[in-house]
Amino acid sequence: MALTPQQQAEIDAQRSASATTRRPTVPALEEILYQALPVLDRGFVRVIDYMGDDAAVVQAARVSYGRGTKKVSEDRGLIHYLLRHRHSTPFEMCEIKFHVKLPIFVARQWIRHRTANVNEYSARYSVLDNEFYIPAPEQLAAQSVANRQGRGDVLEGAEAQRVLTLLREDAARSYAHYEEMLNEREDGSRPDEGRQGLARELARMNLSLNFYTQWYWKTDLHNLLHFLSLRADPHAQYEIRVYAERMLDVVAKWVPITHEAFVQHRLHAVTLSAAAMAAVKRMLAGETVTAENSGLGKREWAELQAELARKES
Amino acid sequence: MALTPQQQAEIDAQRSASATTRRPTVPALEEILYQALPVLDRGFVRVIDYMGDDAAVVQAARVSYGRGTKKVSEDRGLIHYLLRHRHSTPFEMCEIKFHVKLPIFVARQWIRHRTANVNEYSARYSVLDNEFYIPAPEQLAAQSVANRQGRGDVLEGAEAQRVLTLLREDAARSYAHYEEMLNEREDGSRPDEGRQGLARELARMNLSLNFYTQWYWKTDLHNLLHFLSLRADPHAQYEIRVYAERMLDVVAKWVPITHEAFVQHRLHAVTLSAAAMAAVKRMLAGETVTAENSGLGKREWAELQAELARKES
Amino acid sequence: MALTPQQQAEIDAQRSASATTRRPTVPALEEILYQALPVLDRGFVRVIDYMGDDAAVVQAARVSYGRGTKKVSEDRGLIHYLLRHRHSTPFEMCEIKFHVKLPIFVARQWIRHRTANVNEYSARYSVLDNEFYIPAPEQLAAQSVANRQGRGDVLEGAEAQRVLTLLREDAARSYAHYEEMLNEREDGSRPDEGRQGLARELARMNLSLNFYTQWYWKTDLHNLLHFLSLRADPHAQYEIRVYAERMLDVVAKWVPITHEAFVQHRLHAVTLSAAAMAAVKRMLAGETVTAENSGLGKREWAELQAELARKES
Amino acid sequence: MALTPQQQAEIDAQRSASATTRRPTVPALEEILYQALPVLDRGFVRVIDYMGDDAAVVQAARVSYGRGTKKVSEDRGLIHYLLRHRHSTPFEMCEIKFHVKLPIFVARQWIRHRTANVNEYSARYSVLDNEFYIPAPEQLAAQSVANRQGRGDVLEGAEAQRVLTLLREDAARSYAHYEEMLNEREDGSRPDEGRQGLARELARMNLSLNFYTQWYWKTDLHNLLHFLSLRADPHAQYEIRVYAERMLDVVAKWVPITHEAFVQHRLHAVTLSAAAMAAVKRMLAGETVTAENSGLGKREWAELQAELARKES
Repeated sequence: MALTPQQQAEIDAQRSASATTRRPTVPALEEILYQALPVLDRGFVRVIDYMGDDAAVVQAARVSYGRGTKKVSEDRGLIHYLLRHRHSTPFEMCEIKFHVKLPIFVARQWIRHRTANVNEYSARYSVLDNEFYIPAPEQLAAQSVANRQGRGDVLEGAEAQRVLTLLREDAARSYAHYEEMLNEREDGSRPDEGRQGLARELARMNLSLNFYTQWYWKTDLHNLLHFLSLRADPHAQYEIRVYAERMLDVVAKWVPITHEAFVQHRLHAVTLSAAAMAAVKRMLAGETVTAENSGLGKREWAELQAELARKES
Repeated sequence: MALTPQQQAEIDAQRSASATTRRPTVPALEEILYQALPVLDRGFVRVIDYMGDDAAVVQAARVSYGRGTKKVSEDRGLIHYLLRHRHSTPFEMCEIKFHVKLPIFVARQWIRHRTANVNEYSARYSVLDNEFYIPAPEQLAAQSVANRQGRGDVLEGAEAQRVLTLLREDAARSYAHYEEMLNEREDGSRPDEGRQGLARELARMNLSLNFYTQWYWKTDLHNLLHFLSLRADPHAQYEIRVYAERMLDVVAKWVPITHEAFVQHRLHAVTLSAAAMAAVKRMLAGETVTAENSGLGKREWAELQAELARKES
Repeated sequence: MALTPQQQAEIDAQRSASATTRRPTVPALEEILYQALPVLDRGFVRVIDYMGDDAAVVQAARVSYGRGTKKVSEDRGLIHYLLRHRHSTPFEMCEIKFHVKLPIFVARQWIRHRTANVNEYSARYSVLDNEFYIPAPEQLAAQSVANRQGRGDVLEGAEAQRVLTLLREDAARSYAHYEEMLNEREDGSRPDEGRQGLARELARMNLSLNFYTQWYWKTDLHNLLHFLSLRADPHAQYEIRVYAERMLDVVAKWVPITHEAFVQHRLHAVTLSAAAMAAVKRMLAGETVTAENSGLGKREWAELQAELARKES
Repeated sequence: MALTPQQQAEIDAQRSASATTRRPTVPALEEILYQALPVLDRGFVRVIDYMGDDAAVVQAARVSYGRGTKKVSEDRGLIHYLLRHRHSTPFEMCEIKFHVKLPIFVARQWIRHRTANVNEYSARYSVLDNEFYIPAPEQLAAQSVANRQGRGDVLEGAEAQRVLTLLREDAARSYAHYEEMLNEREDGSRPDEGRQGLARELARMNLSLNFYTQWYWKTDLHNLLHFLSLRADPHAQYEIRVYAERMLDVVAKWVPITHEAFVQHRLHAVTLSAAAMAAVKRMLAGETVTAENSGLGKREWAELQAELARKES
């Protein structure tokens, strides 16, 4: 993570101010408000604002005049029930806003989730910082042989070294040339007075996809959970998964009951097709079910076997 | 408006509680938080929660680390610029949640705005209250002759009396029969022990469209302004416009600079087609422009004339 | 269903016209294009237009230059894989447009699905027809005792008779009064020349929720499947479920492979929470798992038991 | 544009097939269906499928049983009226699907329009082609001095030459290193048998933002027009504007009346704020209105002056 002293000072200033409110407030989340939670080598996630709490989910589900909460056990039961039965609208009643710094290739995956509000730093309007992502050595994985969109073994020795060198040198060079083409200093003056400098909106195209960008990203709790169910999943690319995991920690502080229900009924839940469920019932009845007599395709059968063999997380 | 003592007590309880927060807070909005702002004969709008303020718009537009605000005049200029040039995403960074009680026929128009989060009181699950909308005498308008979806003169005398009687009697009767079909008391017991009672999800179909329903409705500031630009407009039906106007007052308390810019650049702005603008330029050049030589269709010409003749609001 | 001769003639005229196209075409769906498929006593579903087919899903998943399809077995495997792993975007590449006639209380549930395009017949602008829904005797169910939003036994004898009489008489009366308040004939003249007639946008509030409305409803295949997974479900209210079932038949004609995969991996699939899956594994390992030692809540345990006992559909 | 012979053959094969349909068909659009319409140096736009036509807008607005069209002049008047008064839902009833090849930095702007369906070529799953965008010399503009996100004069001489060299060399080198890190041939074999090759999802981060990607992009007519109103605007960056202009030509073929109304009432329309309209009325009344007495801010006054001085397009 790379905050300049001035950025840190602005964050500190915001953290030190406080006010009185009649709104629902979550002390555990207030504790980390505005703080930059580090992700990858130079990225972060910051919670900027939030609306609602576990009780707001209950309140909306009951369309109540007051807080609408009853006994803790009843509220907890209701939240579990809502999540298990995919009642999404009560969870839409909570909202959260993040400030995220992330590599552009991660941003390109992330933005595919369309139900959020986004304001991104504009490289058309401003000059991007010289910050790019280089994987840690233990993340430098080979292409998976089994899975076209997965990773295999970690690269080692000369190959790993060569990859790191290429990534670093190419990013450094592309930024140096970006600056040269722009021909502008922060104060607007020109290093080379004889040249006009290329338009920012054009010069940016020379930067590579591992450069960091940043944005404000705001979404409701239902859509956040949907995002996390896809991106905190082991099949997600590591570089976006670490953001999702950091945000999952935030959810645990913000709405602990919903977090618990989400992990139980969504993140670690298993969906069995009609045929897979039939196979399981036959197994429970004592039958020997094989790939051949299961009625499942080869791939789905393998997935079911993996699921049944999996130790609990 | 019709709050039961218990409902009022629940609201008062929420209003009396407060907490400390690091989030942006708007005292003028806190002042009215949770209060039922009356609309129509028995409806209301209540602000339940909010996220952000005018500065949050600026902060997102600048993707800043701290509050991101500069001099008040600069922030104001930026917000006006954003609204004038239809930059919508910074306004999406503020969010507000309402509890609304409204007639079903109004709810049916309202729900067409799809970019909000909604939790409605379920007449499948619960029994609806015996509350229906009856227009005030001055709202009992005849069908407009000029405009197929507008109102004309106010009805008077015997006709007005007859309409009010029909609306009242039919609503009262349909509720009485609803209760009779349900055959259930609040405690779950049956008035007529010999009957089972019709399912709630079926009995509700006997109620008329002027019965009140209620919902939690949450949206971001950009989409709220879009809703208000359509529903606070003079062409909107009176019964939804009064809700929009009440919410516009809320916007003025919440984000006063955005409210000012919205009224200036959206609500009271005028859009002229290419041909209408050409006609105006010819007028400015001293030409006599008529319906015939304007290049405008009959209807658009009349609209332009009305616009040019309109006194300022 | 109630089509006037003129409506039927308009439908026949559209069915008899044809043209040549380079677009993907589905003969089985062309066969029923524009036809009114009856639902409930006077409602219908009509397919008005469609875009894409099973191959379009494959084509988009492969971002191909041509049709992008390979061997039938490969395409089928891909579609099953996409559905099983919740890859939604390829299914968004097909689109369908319906004309639906449905009771207002059904429309109110339906419209909560926000990701569709809708044009509804306007009772602000036009006069609604005198058509309302009356349940068939076998659908006249009592309130469920076990489930607050379900149906129990079918009502019989005098109670059933009384309910039907009330529903019919109240609807007929509310329409008669609607007409009286409007005081207008189809040709615009007034039955009672001495009266102006109430504005349409007001008079409509006297109609009850079982009156029929109609709309054009257009959505993509992914969102249609999501709608069907909720509304063709046994927990959905009967009156909307029959629409969903009719549309599911349409999907089978339109995209048969997707339909098969949807039924297998979504509609008849079962999602087990982490705890429920753990319980199943213990059962498979030969353990006796009980409500008490299962780690599941009472309600979820009952749901799991029901699932394991369920005969295949 | 760069189609391989195989790609062109696939396109030709699709163009040569045809079928009979009962759906509305637009011959002028069929004419160009599947063809690659060139944009920039190697990009294109292809229409893959469409649903509806001008008459479908009318049909939905009237919620009709048949085609719903009347006299051509009435239909045209209705479409103009709908567009002028921002009735959006009838235009949502038409849908179009494109296959687009575009530089990544253009894709990043484009994807911000959230109301479309998208399937992008996956560089996680597949290897990207060696194709990148290099601006034509007349597009090599300096940074604008007046407008932070605009272009100024065209660069010339040595500076232009240097920029082109840097862009070309950096892109070529980053692709060469991408291939080296991947260490894979199309048939899956490895050029350097001693190395495993970096995972595709990691290697891609070395590519710069001017590399071409491609996607299927599908949207309804209303949202397409909204996209075009922003991106065919002179303030849009040239590299996305040329795509918008090409798509605007497609709209003219597809729905000529809607296209005409869109240009008239949206693309070339002018929105005047309440204060700007008041100033215009004072001018029409013969007053001398100046920047000082206009009541407008400096920037808005300049915008109004420019608008009044602008020759018609």
